[in-house]
Amino acid sequence: MYAARLNTLRRIAADAGLDAILLLPGRNLVYVTGQQFHLMERPTVGIFPREGDPVILLPALEIAKFAAPPYPLQIFTYTDTEGPEAAYAAGLAAAGLSGKRAGVEGLVMRYAEMQLLQRHAPGIVFEDATGPLAALRLCKAADEVATMRRAIQVSEEALRQTIAAVRPGQTEQQIANALLIAMLQGGGGNLPFEPIVLGGPRSALPHGVPEARPVMEGELLLFDYGTSLGGYNSDITRTFVLGELRETRLQDAYAAVLAANTAGRMAAGPGVPAQEVDRAARAAIVQAGFGEYFTHRTGHGLGMDVHEPPYIREGNTDLLEVGNVFTVEPGIYLPDVGGIRIEDDVLITPDGAESLTTFPRELQSIGG
Amino acid sequence: MYAARLNTLRRIAADAGLDAILLLPGRNLVYVTGQQFHLMERPTVGIFPREGDPVILLPALEIAKFAAPPYPLQIFTYTDTEGPEAAYAAGLAAAGLSGKRAGVEGLVMRYAEMQLLQRHAPGIVFEDATGPLAALRLCKAADEVATMRRAIQVSEEALRQTIAAVRPGQTEQQIANALLIAMLQGGGGNLPFEPIVLGGPRSALPHGVPEARPVMEGELLLFDYGTSLGGYNSDITRTFVLGELRETRLQDAYAAVLAANTAGRMAAGPGVPAQEVDRAARAAIVQAGFGEYFTHRTGHGLGMDVHEPPYIREGNTDLLEVGNVFTVEPGIYLPDVGGIRIEDDVLITPDGAESLTTFPRELQSIGG
Repeated sequence: MYAARLNTLRRIAADAGLDAILLLPGRNLVYVTGQQFHLMERPTVGIFPREGDPVILLPALEIAKFAAPPYPLQIFTYTDTEGPEAAYAAGLAAAGLSGKRAGVEGLVMRYAEMQLLQRHAPGIVFEDATGPLAALRLCKAADEVATMRRAIQVSEEALRQTIAAVRPGQTEQQIANALLIAMLQGGGGNLPFEPIVLGGPRSALPHGVPEARPVMEGELLLFDYGTSLGGYNSDITRTFVLGELRETRLQDAYAAVLAANTAGRMAAGPGVPAQEVDRAARAAIVQAGFGEYFTHRTGHGLGMDVHEPPYIREGNTDLLEVGNVFTVEPGIYLPDVGGIRIEDDVLITPDGAESLTTFPRELQSIGG
Repeated sequence: MYAARLNTLRRIAADAGLDAILLLPGRNLVYVTGQQFHLMERPTVGIFPREGDPVILLPALEIAKFAAPPYPLQIFTYTDTEGPEAAYAAGLAAAGLSGKRAGVEGLVMRYAEMQLLQRHAPGIVFEDATGPLAALRLCKAADEVATMRRAIQVSEEALRQTIAAVRPGQTEQQIANALLIAMLQGGGGNLPFEPIVLGGPRSALPHGVPEARPVMEGELLLFDYGTSLGGYNSDITRTFVLGELRETRLQDAYAAVLAANTAGRMAAGPGVPAQEVDRAARAAIVQAGFGEYFTHRTGHGLGMDVHEPPYIREGNTDLLEVGNVFTVEPGIYLPDVGGIRIEDDVLITPDGAESLTTFPRELQSIGG
């Protein structure tokens, strides 16, 4: 499996006219080597030449737990006392990167590592390989989808338990903690991101953080959360009401978001441009008169990263493929009133699309 | 408070001969603005000129929750549909960075943001300001120390609960989950890093990850973990034995690590070069004959980041100052046999040093 992934990486390098691809600790390096690395102040770089053996440069204290992948690999290490310079000099000489074109992960590669690489591979030319690298993990294999289903199952069961225990007067932070605990007890692993649990008018903050604010009868309560299991993430949003939703405008907004979520999921399928999913979801919200309050793209790819390709937004004409997994998460945010978002994780299948998330989407009253 | 922090940042820029300092989402940007930002595929950059008002470039969907700090600030936003180019063009023109010297966080600044900045501020020269920026958060104020004490208290209480429930046959992952749950129930916030819980020979992996491996009677069990609370981290390691530790070599190693931890803490004080703490701890382990098995530096600074300055290692001649907080975490790792590490969080005081962590350090038998 790892040898096949290495070959995919080499093909990506060749197609992009790159001499090598450089990976920092992150999902791509895990995907290609099967090994976990830390992104920290001690530099680690994986060099994957288009031809020839990969070279890994890493701190000595990481080597004990390093299990080499099933392909030839050169490893150069350094201790805290030595510092990285000599190891990088030797490793970059072995990789022969001086004056070569090296593809980097634009959203991962850091200034410090770039400086170190330039010192020891004079004339190296960096190019952003984010676009070509999207192909590496874009189509999930059956075992990856199975792992994501398990992460989603843990998340949805935890949400069921959590909403059953919500009562007016509990704070957003208390509810968020209860959700985290339920996911851990259910077998979830470490957490992809702090859960977003927002009550009342605060639900209108698309990236808000839970506060010590109590949720009250009649308010909306929005959960946007996920877990990570076996290296893959879930990412789900549901919006509830404590007791009864009295404001007609929020009732209308809920109906519009639900229609947009459905339209987005229905539009998805193999061969469909990614932007068509965004357009379908957005049209439903515009038609209901809330267009200006849907302030973000419809979704993002999901897998080892919580945000990865394909991005479901206007302008992305890439065609969806079997094995793509992405979110469909339209929302309406009425400032100082409330926000509603309904987010599903959708898999492209040969016949169309399947929502891996199955938690009910209709407005549900909770709180006692 | 934030205005004072901004002044510190400006002074750092001036002392380093920089025209501006550029901050990406991360601890420094939180420290200076009091606002949370996401490091993601949508670029966010804070520009802090030596003179003139700061400029923040950020995605439009983050603006709703943005509460401006108490100093003049220019904000430029972009939507997903617009993309960042126009906002960056306008913001960088306002900041006047073309041809200027801009200090960057070497371990945070990414290739993608650098490209964007270079496109819209032609001739901008980047310099690594990691060294000068260390001064920004190096000395913790009283309220920061108080927050760290609370994080430590939650962590230590969770460890007490967790070890009381450990039984032979439980897996590392189960025990790690129990520890996470206890921290969340105790009021800990989101997690700085996945807890390291390693049993038996696996305790010899300094950065190992918990596995589905049961821990057995007579084995070592190492916990290296922490929580984050109010934006500050705890980081603690303790090593226990299930039942009785029979191997004389591991008993000797434990005694050596304990002596090293004590020596390191005792060596710390205001005006002491950081490397002297490393030397004191290392000497105790070398003297006991285990020098080659202490494979990492003695510690790292701790605060908003889990790893930050001051680094407690040979070669760091920076003088410790009142308000510095760092770990003292000597360890001995006998491959395929077992590892021991004892880690405390130490605050430099006017009189010397105080260990904020107070969990007992003597070898404790657990497991029923």
